[in-house]
Amino acid sequence: MLKAIEGGITAPKGFQAAGVKAGIKKSGKEDLTVIYSPTPASAAALFTTNAFAAAGVVVSREVAAKGTAQAIVVNSGCANSCTGNQGLDDARAMGHQTASLLGLADDDVFVASTGIIGVNLPMAKVADGIRRAVAELSAANHEQALRGIMTTDTFAKVAAYEFSLGGVTARVAGIAKGAGMISPNMATLLSFVTTDAAIAPAALKKALQEAVAVSFNSITVDGDMSTNDSLCMLANGQAGNKRIEGAGDPAYGEFVAALTAVCTDLAKLVVRDGEGATKFLEITVRGAVSYEDAKTAAMSVAKSPLVKTAFFGQDPNWGRILCAAGYSGAKIDPDKATLALGGIVVAKGGMNAVADAKALQKVMADKDILVELDLGVGGGTATVWTCDFSYEYVKINADYST
Amino acid sequence: MLKAIEGGITAPKGFQAAGVKAGIKKSGKEDLTVIYSPTPASAAALFTTNAFAAAGVVVSREVAAKGTAQAIVVNSGCANSCTGNQGLDDARAMGHQTASLLGLADDDVFVASTGIIGVNLPMAKVADGIRRAVAELSAANHEQALRGIMTTDTFAKVAAYEFSLGGVTARVAGIAKGAGMISPNMATLLSFVTTDAAIAPAALKKALQEAVAVSFNSITVDGDMSTNDSLCMLANGQAGNKRIEGAGDPAYGEFVAALTAVCTDLAKLVVRDGEGATKFLEITVRGAVSYEDAKTAAMSVAKSPLVKTAFFGQDPNWGRILCAAGYSGAKIDPDKATLALGGIVVAKGGMNAVADAKALQKVMADKDILVELDLGVGGGTATVWTCDFSYEYVKINADYST
Repeated sequence: MLKAIEGGITAPKGFQAAGVKAGIKKSGKEDLTVIYSPTPASAAALFTTNAFAAAGVVVSREVAAKGTAQAIVVNSGCANSCTGNQGLDDARAMGHQTASLLGLADDDVFVASTGIIGVNLPMAKVADGIRRAVAELSAANHEQALRGIMTTDTFAKVAAYEFSLGGVTARVAGIAKGAGMISPNMATLLSFVTTDAAIAPAALKKALQEAVAVSFNSITVDGDMSTNDSLCMLANGQAGNKRIEGAGDPAYGEFVAALTAVCTDLAKLVVRDGEGATKFLEITVRGAVSYEDAKTAAMSVAKSPLVKTAFFGQDPNWGRILCAAGYSGAKIDPDKATLALGGIVVAKGGMNAVADAKALQKVMADKDILVELDLGVGGGTATVWTCDFSYEYVKINADYST
Repeated sequence: MLKAIEGGITAPKGFQAAGVKAGIKKSGKEDLTVIYSPTPASAAALFTTNAFAAAGVVVSREVAAKGTAQAIVVNSGCANSCTGNQGLDDARAMGHQTASLLGLADDDVFVASTGIIGVNLPMAKVADGIRRAVAELSAANHEQALRGIMTTDTFAKVAAYEFSLGGVTARVAGIAKGAGMISPNMATLLSFVTTDAAIAPAALKKALQEAVAVSFNSITVDGDMSTNDSLCMLANGQAGNKRIEGAGDPAYGEFVAALTAVCTDLAKLVVRDGEGATKFLEITVRGAVSYEDAKTAAMSVAKSPLVKTAFFGQDPNWGRILCAAGYSGAKIDPDKATLALGGIVVAKGGMNAVADAKALQKVMADKDILVELDLGVGGGTATVWTCDFSYEYVKINADYST
C-alpha cells in the first residue's frame, strides 16, 4: 500500500537537509545542498559509466563501496568534470569539509556536482556554502535543498511515499535534477534518495539496481550519457522495521516496490522536463523474445531523431517507428508486428492499418501519447519514456554556453 | 593514379542508363532509373540490417547471392517498405518487367526503392516508366538516371574515376541518394556503382565491404538506419584487365583504392547534403586500442545531439565531445586524452587547454571543421564524417508527411 506524502527528501524519519546560495551559479540561485542523517545509514549508489567520470563520481564510488554513509554534499552550476587532479582534490575537499563540520569520517559523505563541464569549482565559495548549509540543516529545509541541485530544470522533481514494511510504516523519498544529457546506463542524472527503512547495504544496492533498471535506466531525452550521473541513497533504519538482510526477506519486495515508485516518478518528471519537450511519450514493446530485447527495441524508438521530430510535428509517421525498432537488433517478425498510437492500431502485419485518420490526428495532438509495439515473437515486455525533439531543444543546446 | 572523370554512372565502358518521369513522385520529377550492362557482369551488394527490410532489398539479396547481374531498376517517391506480400510481389514485378524487356533472367536485375514507407507502388505507372526507361537506355543519359534516384536530396551525388589496373586503364563510377535516415551498418543509403574492371564476384564483394567500411559505414546524419539501404554494384570487365580473382591478386589493391575513392566521395556528399546541415564535420580519433575502438568513439561523438547542436551554435563546447567519447565504450585514458578543433588544442589531459578563444571562435564559424581526438591508449585511428543538428533538421522532419 503506497501513499504519496509531503515533506520531500526529509519525509523519511531522521533526515535533515539544507540548500544555500553559495554564489557558484551566475543566476545567484541556490547551488549547494547538504543532506544528512544524524544516525548511521546503509548506503548504495549507481554512477555513470562514462570514461570521463566527474571528480565527484570518483569520490562517491569509494563511499558506495564501503556501504555506509551519513551525508551527501552536492553543488550545481559547475560539474567539476574534466578538471584533472585539481578537480579531484576539490571534490575530496568538499567531502572533507562536510565531514569535519558534521563530525564524520570523509568516506561517510557522498559528493556530487552538476553544471558546466571543464571548469574548476570556486572552492572558497563552496567552503562557505557548506558551512552555511550545515548550520541550516533541518527537516524543514527540503525545498531549498531541492532547488540547490537544479540547473536547466524548469520545475523541481520530488517524490515521497509512505508504505507498509514488515508490519511497520516506513518512508522513501527522492529528488532529482536533469533535463538534458539524459540517457540510460546506470543512474542517468543526479538523484538522491532517502529512506527510514532498515536494510543491509548489499540488499539496498540490489534493490536500487532493480528499481533503477525500470525507471531511470528506462528513460532518454537525447541519448547523451553525462559524465556526472549519480544516484546516491541513504537508509537510516529509523522506521524500526526488522532489518532487511537480502532479497529472500519477505519485506524486500515491499521495499523494492516503494523504491521503484519513487524512482519511476522522478524518472518520468525528468522526461517531462526534457529540454524543449512538447510531448511525453510512453513506449511499450510487447511480444519480444525477452525483457532485454523489448527494452532494446523500445529504446531504439525512443532515441530516434526521426521518430522524435515526427511526434513534434504531430505526424503519425508509423514507418519511422517500425524502422527504428527494425534496426535495434531486437528479434522481430515483420509479418506479425503490430503498432498502435494512443490505442489506435496504425500498422498490422508490418503494414499500414490506419482506418480512421481523423481519430489518429486527434491522438497526435495530445501532450501524452502511448506507443504500443508488438514484435510478434515472444512474451517479453518493456516500457520506456521519452519526449519529442523540438526547435527549442536545438535552441537550448546551441546556446548553452561553454 | 586516380583521375576524376566526367560521365557519371555510365563513365565505365559498356554501361547504359536512363531516368524517366513515371509519375510516382508528386513533384513530377524523374523517379525511375534503369542502369544496364549489355554484357554479363559480376555483381555484389550490401544491404540494410533493418528487420523491416524493404521488398526491393529482399529481391536484391537474391541477386547478390548469385554473384552476377546486368541491370538495376530503382524508383524514388515510394520506398515499397512495410508493404507486406503485395510489396514483395510488386518488387518482383519491377525486376521481371525490366528483365523481360532486356532479355535477361529475373535474377539478373537488382531492384531498389526509396521514398515514403508504408505505401504501395503505383504499378501501372512503374511498368510504363520501366518501358520508357529501357527504350531510352544509353551512355549519354546518366544525368537523368541520377535525378531518378533523388528524394529530399538538394544536389546530385556522383563520383567517377579512371585508374590504372594491372597495366590497363579502368573506370569506376557511382551515384548515391540520401539526406536523412542515414546511419552506418551496411550500406547506409541508396548507391549504385559501376566499373569496367574484370573481377570475380567473391573478390568484388570483399572489395566492396572494404571500401564501404571506411566510407558509407563511416558517416551518420541522424543515427537512423533506413529500411531500404542498398548499395548495388556491377563489374562488366570491359576494361580488358586480367580478371582479379581474389585479394591476393596484385591488382586487387589498385581496384580497392579506386572503389574506396568513389565511395568516400559519395559518402561525404551525402553528409554535406544532410538534412538541415550547416556544418561538415570530419572527426578523426587517434590513440585508440584498435580501429574498431577508434570508430566507436568517433561515431559516438558524431551521433551526439548535444555535440551536433553545439556545432550548429558555433559553441566550442569541448566537454560534450569528451563526454560523448567517454560513454562510447571505447577505452580511454582521461589523463592522456587530447582534443583539437580546427587544429587548435582545446583539451589536454582531459582538461581545458584553450589558449586563444578568439582563434577558436574563428574555427567554429567555418563551414568545414576538423575534430581530432586522441584517446591516449594505443595506435588505432578512424575517421568519420557527420553534420550538425539545426532548426532546419527538426523542421524538415517534423513536416515530411506520412
